[in-house]
Amino acid sequence: MRRTLLAAALTLLFSLPLQAQQPTRIGDDAMARAATLRERALADDTGWKVVESLTTEVGPRLAGSEADARAVEWAKAKFKALGYDKVWTEPVTFPKWERRSESARVLGASAQPLHVTALGGSPAGTVEGDVVRFATLEDLQKAAPGSLAGKIAFVDYRMERARDGSGYGPGGRVRSAGPSAAIKAGAIGYVMRSAGTDSHRNPHTGMTRFEDGLTPIPSAALSLPDADQLARLVALGNTRIALSLDCGWDGEYTSQNVIGEMTGRSKPDEVVVIGGHLDSWDLGTGAIDDGAGVAIGMAAGHLIGQLPKAQRPARTIRVIAFANEEQGLYGGRAYAQKYAADIRKHQLGAESDFGAGRIYAFAAKTPDYAKDAVARIAQALGPLGIEHREDGDGCGPDLSPFNAIGMACAGLSQDGTDYFDLHHTPDDTLDKIDPKALAQNVAAYTVFAFLAADAQGDFGSAPKPADGAK
Amino acid sequence: MRRTLLAAALTLLFSLPLQAQQPTRIGDDAMARAATLRERALADDTGWKVVESLTTEVGPRLAGSEADARAVEWAKAKFKALGYDKVWTEPVTFPKWERRSESARVLGASAQPLHVTALGGSPAGTVEGDVVRFATLEDLQKAAPGSLAGKIAFVDYRMERARDGSGYGPGGRVRSAGPSAAIKAGAIGYVMRSAGTDSHRNPHTGMTRFEDGLTPIPSAALSLPDADQLARLVALGNTRIALSLDCGWDGEYTSQNVIGEMTGRSKPDEVVVIGGHLDSWDLGTGAIDDGAGVAIGMAAGHLIGQLPKAQRPARTIRVIAFANEEQGLYGGRAYAQKYAADIRKHQLGAESDFGAGRIYAFAAKTPDYAKDAVARIAQALGPLGIEHREDGDGCGPDLSPFNAIGMACAGLSQDGTDYFDLHHTPDDTLDKIDPKALAQNVAAYTVFAFLAADAQGDFGSAPKPADGAK
Repeated sequence: MRRTLLAAALTLLFSLPLQAQQPTRIGDDAMARAATLRERALADDTGWKVVESLTTEVGPRLAGSEADARAVEWAKAKFKALGYDKVWTEPVTFPKWERRSESARVLGASAQPLHVTALGGSPAGTVEGDVVRFATLEDLQKAAPGSLAGKIAFVDYRMERARDGSGYGPGGRVRSAGPSAAIKAGAIGYVMRSAGTDSHRNPHTGMTRFEDGLTPIPSAALSLPDADQLARLVALGNTRIALSLDCGWDGEYTSQNVIGEMTGRSKPDEVVVIGGHLDSWDLGTGAIDDGAGVAIGMAAGHLIGQLPKAQRPARTIRVIAFANEEQGLYGGRAYAQKYAADIRKHQLGAESDFGAGRIYAFAAKTPDYAKDAVARIAQALGPLGIEHREDGDGCGPDLSPFNAIGMACAGLSQDGTDYFDLHHTPDDTLDKIDPKALAQNVAAYTVFAFLAADAQGDFGSAPKPADGAK
Repeated sequence: MRRTLLAAALTLLFSLPLQAQQPTRIGDDAMARAATLRERALADDTGWKVVESLTTEVGPRLAGSEADARAVEWAKAKFKALGYDKVWTEPVTFPKWERRSESARVLGASAQPLHVTALGGSPAGTVEGDVVRFATLEDLQKAAPGSLAGKIAFVDYRMERARDGSGYGPGGRVRSAGPSAAIKAGAIGYVMRSAGTDSHRNPHTGMTRFEDGLTPIPSAALSLPDADQLARLVALGNTRIALSLDCGWDGEYTSQNVIGEMTGRSKPDEVVVIGGHLDSWDLGTGAIDDGAGVAIGMAAGHLIGQLPKAQRPARTIRVIAFANEEQGLYGGRAYAQKYAADIRKHQLGAESDFGAGRIYAFAAKTPDYAKDAVARIAQALGPLGIEHREDGDGCGPDLSPFNAIGMACAGLSQDGTDYFDLHHTPDDTLDKIDPKALAQNVAAYTVFAFLAADAQGDFGSAPKPADGAK
């Protein structure tokens, strides 16, 4: 009873000011300027040139590698070349994981190599053992302790293809939770069918985490054809493989979030945040993950910044190239921590980190007083083939920590039907990006950022009561 | 004048007997049995099971490797399991080339790995040098002697996709002739855009040959996205790469042509020859090149062999799994040499070595007296969606040496639109074969072999006058 009263009081406390607030508005003039920007963006190739430059000149840029530092220098220089008003960096420190070599092979009468890649976070080691296949992660999790002693666990789960990437939930869990389940059953090594939807000899890497108290074992992903092959061999009888990984943790590294701003016309200290993450996995050149996101953000800010000062939006456009998303949202968490006291100055945020497919939906969870303004943004996005939805996919991984403590966020959903053909593989290269689809993305982010930054009123950014930070 | 007379006399000498010959005939009863076989083959999965077994249990089988010997044992056992009346092997000796390791990387400000594979026949070596790009082989061939001293030549020719594989002519020449052209211009290393039509990080291997008197240099193929990348880097300015190959020749090896026969009803010493090559490149598991061809031949012979003895065709069906096609048609040349005196006993031959795509055309170059019989075979193939053409693609690489000295041959043209996406890459794996398309191939070869073997009369096999062997 007392808890109910308290809850009611809290609801009153935090909801009353919102309900009393004036509706957020976007004027016709802003809509007209947004339409002009949209057409300009569709005809512009800045996004393509940026992602071409990053993937070609820097190439793969594993967090903590020498290429990480080159990527930071590249981003600073690129922001400046694109005319950003302010460019700076903010340090992001994290443990450094290195991949040095990796191989696997079937032993015995059907001796042959298998294409594998170490999971991020895997320790080094060479193990040989009989393979025990599990159709799903849950099957492995049911294995009795000690039942896999001396053996190599193989989870053969086949991830589903979906436009919204929803297959990655269960697919990704095989990677994150599989190794610990294997250790608990006594396995000496872990292999999995890659969390991917292609049929090429390119395994998909990505982080795994070992539960506290467990001794990590060499853990790797097989390409999908190699998983097919191993499953067939296991079905024929006892199958022994050797897995040899040279990789592991090696101290700490400090990289940088690289930030560029186009200053707002009248409220320069309030910002709309867009961007992507600068790091990539080492196997590809990080074109769709996430050179495209960095390029979309940089190009959108550039297009807005090209406007005469008087036509700039009221607020500042802040574009962030986040450090080390891949290994645990380090850049996004550092940003949230640094700007926790400035949540209200963050008008709205959206990150692009799901490739370069066409955006098909827009959604923003906001208080009721901002719904008209959200609808106006959706209206301006409509000619790009973008549908307005009530519920979206959130605002991207790197902004999720900040969103969790109160920043209002929007989601621009990209068509990810083919995303997991390429994700975290050597095949994540520039040729996989369609320049026209990329330009559609740039146009969408340009329109979105411009209108959000020019709105009269806000979208509900406020420290979350649950955090006691208000 | 005298030469004209001589030519006229020769024409008379060799054409008269042919013109006087009775037309070769295929009876209605044979046509009816062929139709039954065709439908049986379409519903049968023997071909699929054979290629699944070879690619899974043996896997990659580079000529001269330990897997070559396993493949020979596999083929003998498979012929026996499929009920072949006779199974034997015939030795094929060739120089042995080994691949041990290979890597390449861009040096300097854009340091990054490049995906390469050594060309078959390349020597070992590590070279570092500035890259000089040539758009075509012909451009490299025009380079002045010494102009590439200390440099690495890069031929960036983009092969064309085509159903009949015609793009492989110019694409393959970049591989066979490029290294020698590079050496003549003074280069210390050679890289090429793979002769392929895909966009994956899988380079395409294949043999090269160094002209006599030249000192071989390390020679490799880049995957297509890596060739794109290197071309972009070269366009940006001086680009230095390191190429490191550990591979080379190592003595001689004796493998085997593995042969299975289903004995003919009434002319058992005359044969129709079908088959494919047993060896593969080492990068994939040799599914489309040429596990499919071996499987199609084995399955077609098996289906014919399942007939009651009285319904067997008059002549014997001989299925050959040729040794070492990839490195120079060694198995096909050994066969031609061994059977040179028996050309007339070879009724007709056709090899499958262009993947597992649907057959769309049938052609056989024969004397006029056999054209009715060829038309009857084409008629029986019609329901499979196969068109009769006057000119075809020949009878496959391994039978070409025997065809050159007189064996009559037919061609069943497969749809190779996607063949060079996979050819000689790690991606040549079982999942790339469509079981229904494979069954269509088996049905076509079954019909073809049955009718050719049962025809009354021949298709013109005879030692060629040009060889003076008549």
